Amino acid sequence: MKTRDKILKASLALFNEKGERNVTTNHIAAHLGISPGNLYYHFRNKEDIVHAIFGEYVRHLETAFTPKENGPTLDVLMSYLDGVFYTMWEFRFFYASLPDILARNPALHQEYFLVQTQLADRVVAILHTLKAEGILAIDEADLPDLAHTVKIMVTFWISYQTTQAVDAAITRPVIYQGVLKVLFLIRPYLAPDARDTIARLEDHYRRLALRTR
Amino acid sequence: MKTRDKILKASLALFNEKGERNVTTNHIAAHLGISPGNLYYHFRNKEDIVHAIFGEYVRHLETAFTPKENGPTLDVLMSYLDGVFYTMWEFRFFYASLPDILARNPALHQEYFLVQTQLADRVVAILHTLKAEGILAIDEADLPDLAHTVKIMVTFWISYQTTQAVDAAITRPVIYQGVLKVLFLIRPYLAPDARDTIARLEDHYRRLALRTR
Repeated sequence: MKTRDKILKASLALFNEKGERNVTTNHIAAHLGISPGNLYYHFRNKEDIVHAIFGEYVRHLETAFTPKENGPTLDVLMSYLDGVFYTMWEFRFFYASLPDILARNPALHQEYFLVQTQLADRVVAILHTLKAEGILAIDEADLPDLAHTVKIMVTFWISYQTTQAVDAAITRPVIYQGVLKVLFLIRPYLAPDARDTIARLEDHYRRLALRTR
Repeated sequence: MKTRDKILKASLALFNEKGERNVTTNHIAAHLGISPGNLYYHFRNKEDIVHAIFGEYVRHLETAFTPKENGPTLDVLMSYLDGVFYTMWEFRFFYASLPDILARNPALHQEYFLVQTQLADRVVAILHTLKAEGILAIDEADLPDLAHTVKIMVTFWISYQTTQAVDAAITRPVIYQGVLKVLFLIRPYLAPDARDTIARLEDHYRRLALRTR
């Protein structure tokens, strides 16, 4: 692995483990057993590393969030939820300090904003497909509000967890509890025929959410 | 007004206007035309000021969130929403940097956590009353999930707004859009008889949300 990639990988692991605000470039260099000078050869500063990791996050999200062209829509919804929440897990430091990181870096904030707009459009498109297939029985007027609500819940699930306890650990079960919250938001709008299928999805995630860490 | 109170008032105004991370004790002293030494006579550091403001926030929230003993429950809901969102408006800097402020100060985080637990209990109690009065037709098993969802939406509404645009201004209409989001979350669980009343509430907040800044 190239040094640049090693730095990114180690930074992501340290940010996720200790929180981005508690990790300096010196910590990262020491962790890799390289000199600070070697690190600065590849990145100007910590902000530069955070920005590069953001690029990887966006690539992961795009892969996770591109619905399969074929197959039943509920499978698409499930693969979307799995993919997005797995990406959140992989880049959880970012969600845990979102307002702070964005406030420090206007260029990154602008990129984040563009990605978010695309994500919002995709959530609306997925809900539209679910409605067209008769899985959601939702008024057209309520669809953007539901998409918006889902997006807020996804975006702040990890922040919420970190604020609700001192030193809260963000574990995979916590991520799956977030998937269950999204299903809870969607449930009132399900067509009667679709309720059994969503109940099965909920059981699936409930088992994952209860798994020991 | 005593100097200590002046410092708290000016700090709150500056934090709300410029963001807490961008305001130093020197800014606060300069704004009041007092010496930094005078400020340090009253507060050890900025953290100490943030902590004192948190105490005021909790007192405001307790007043806003104590439902009236009598009167129709929907009036109670409305006064709760008005009160909580007005408190959020008054202390909006806090919501805009919540994970960051709490991560810096474990003692404050612990206090925040206790207050949040009490708030969650009150949201559950209000939803229970709405169910008992036949306004909400919700399964007992879903009630904690709905309360939880409402709480997440309220807590992160301002963070969400600040992350969705570079230099997003948090204005009163933005706060009222948050009230509408809470009503949107509750709406699917309304008993048929209550729908007209909630529609009127939504109209009320929609007008406030559209008002020019």
